[in-house]
Amino acid sequence: MQITDVETIRFETERQPKTTDRKGHAHPGEGPPERTEQTITRIVTDDGPDGYTLGGDEDSNRWMADYLEGMDPLARETIWKDIATHRRISYRRGPIATIDHALWDLAGRHAGLPVYKLLGGARERIPCYASTMCGDDDPEGLGTPEAYADFAESLVEAGYPAVKLHTWMPPYDEDPERVIAACRAVREAVGPEIDLMLDSHHFYTRLEAKQIGEALADLEYTWFEEPLNEQSIAAYEWLTREVDVPVLGPETVRGNMQARAEWIRNGAMDICRTSCNNGGGITGALKTVHLCEAFEMTCEAHGGGAPNLHVMGAMSIPGRYCERGLLHPDYEYDWTPPHLDAPIDELNDDGTVTVPQRVGLGERYNWDYIDDNRLS
Amino acid sequence: MQITDVETIRFETERQPKTTDRKGHAHPGEGPPERTEQTITRIVTDDGPDGYTLGGDEDSNRWMADYLEGMDPLARETIWKDIATHRRISYRRGPIATIDHALWDLAGRHAGLPVYKLLGGARERIPCYASTMCGDDDPEGLGTPEAYADFAESLVEAGYPAVKLHTWMPPYDEDPERVIAACRAVREAVGPEIDLMLDSHHFYTRLEAKQIGEALADLEYTWFEEPLNEQSIAAYEWLTREVDVPVLGPETVRGNMQARAEWIRNGAMDICRTSCNNGGGITGALKTVHLCEAFEMTCEAHGGGAPNLHVMGAMSIPGRYCERGLLHPDYEYDWTPPHLDAPIDELNDDGTVTVPQRVGLGERYNWDYIDDNRLS
Repeated sequence: MQITDVETIRFETERQPKTTDRKGHAHPGEGPPERTEQTITRIVTDDGPDGYTLGGDEDSNRWMADYLEGMDPLARETIWKDIATHRRISYRRGPIATIDHALWDLAGRHAGLPVYKLLGGARERIPCYASTMCGDDDPEGLGTPEAYADFAESLVEAGYPAVKLHTWMPPYDEDPERVIAACRAVREAVGPEIDLMLDSHHFYTRLEAKQIGEALADLEYTWFEEPLNEQSIAAYEWLTREVDVPVLGPETVRGNMQARAEWIRNGAMDICRTSCNNGGGITGALKTVHLCEAFEMTCEAHGGGAPNLHVMGAMSIPGRYCERGLLHPDYEYDWTPPHLDAPIDELNDDGTVTVPQRVGLGERYNWDYIDDNRLS
Repeated sequence: MQITDVETIRFETERQPKTTDRKGHAHPGEGPPERTEQTITRIVTDDGPDGYTLGGDEDSNRWMADYLEGMDPLARETIWKDIATHRRISYRRGPIATIDHALWDLAGRHAGLPVYKLLGGARERIPCYASTMCGDDDPEGLGTPEAYADFAESLVEAGYPAVKLHTWMPPYDEDPERVIAACRAVREAVGPEIDLMLDSHHFYTRLEAKQIGEALADLEYTWFEEPLNEQSIAAYEWLTREVDVPVLGPETVRGNMQARAEWIRNGAMDICRTSCNNGGGITGALKTVHLCEAFEMTCEAHGGGAPNLHVMGAMSIPGRYCERGLLHPDYEYDWTPPHLDAPIDELNDDGTVTVPQRVGLGERYNWDYIDDNRLS
């Protein structure tokens, strides 16, 4: 079995409208679903199944096709190492994750198994937290502590066992007192049984972060995520020592399992963070998960998507939650885009998401729709 | 697919005669092949393939059958964690490796793939070192530095690109000067191009180990293995700082990837050591391999066997060598026991061993012979 091509299937589809503020954070847009472009990357083989994953761009895939042509699609470690090092691609996003995800999908189809069972299944359902969008200035949206409290209450009513707040970040006022007020309002609204987390502005000073962290400890939050610039391991080491709420990270720092190894060695967090998209695909995320197990540390996956669910389904020390969102009172998250027959992360009645049980990554593509809307 | 039983196939077979000295080390015996007992552990499923591995004992397997009955044989992480923790079994040997190996064999058979391709293939052939038995008092065996030199020369002529010496250990005289003389005689006999390693008496004092290590650095040895009691991380940290030859370990210390994490964090070795048999099976060894990758450290596998070969075939940072032995001038290692159609580690002309390419672990059992010689 050899790789013969890496194809980019580009098509038009629809999405719920979103806007982006001038600092890059998403907020709900207005009106009906809007047209958007989407891609699927397809690794083509001569006499095996093909492998598919959402995303990927034509330039990268054309370049990867040149490199991968003639290779064994099951030689994932060779391919991963080569993309990660010899070609000096950052682990963060980019072709390494796209290609790795498509190769795992292919391996699953070849074996007739969902990916998490190839990895060594540990669980079928992952408890799930509702992850809010960042704050805004709309009192009916996420503009006040009370608005967060009302929204959190509705999320708990909808069945979520946990809620993570993204509070205000510039251009909205990120004042620590106001962030703490929102965290307190939410705790009071949902009561003591619901797990709560905070993912706040990522560029607080040490003392601001400590002020927020101490409040979160009092409010019995489950974790405190990325309040400081992740370029400073020393700042996270300090914060982890200073506050009682568990500090979680790193998320956006460059470097995959090697960066996490340095954070662990320096005691810079209580809970580790990885993700397939930013952490070198399933292969890279799994290496981080195994690193964490060697240090008896929990590892939580950042963001959604099928690859993360499969990794979470194969953790020996289970991450506590998968992330579902981003959510907002005015944004319809539970909506299936027309290129899929079903979303990958439907919420079960017990507040969990099921690890995809179909072969490979288990995405449910609507190929009729995709073919009718092909751009290339 | 559910596990219905864990069966112990016990049978008589033949082996090359060996003796054991009063400190527990093996030496060649005399005469023709002798009868011995051997087991194969078989995990039985209701409607999938079964999984097989060499070894396992009836008591443990009967006990594991009670626990595993009704479980999904692909839920390796669940099973691994449960054996490793809830039942408080030491990672060292025992049921965790036997069961894990049989589960990987089963997964490979289910997927129609060799295990190393399930793991993410990285290479098909592993360079191989000849690993000698411990020293003795036979001048025609391994009784003198000259005897080691002669034997090493014959091993290089036989095609090995590297040789590892196990030198004298009690009850034979482990004097460092004599060990160094053997190491020097071997280097002089094989010339500068052959990689050489030393695995010596494991209970030298720090200063004895340093004396030997400095000599090995001068003789350009590739690694220095387990010269000190592995219960002292501090001693290994000291030795790694003091000598220029790369220090390799740990091998026999209790604790799997967690122990290795502590060694790495303390700078207690230059090269890490794991094995499937002692390191919690393929699942445990892979976690150690990934730990090492996060610290950019090479990991070498201890001992032979199909599981180690599959792990070595899936390393992103490749271990340099697989181990073939133990060898001695008077011991016929290249001999196929009658319960196998072929040994797992035949030496290729290029000094490598091929990672098994058949489905699962790829052992070539002679079922006719086994059935004819069943004891249970």
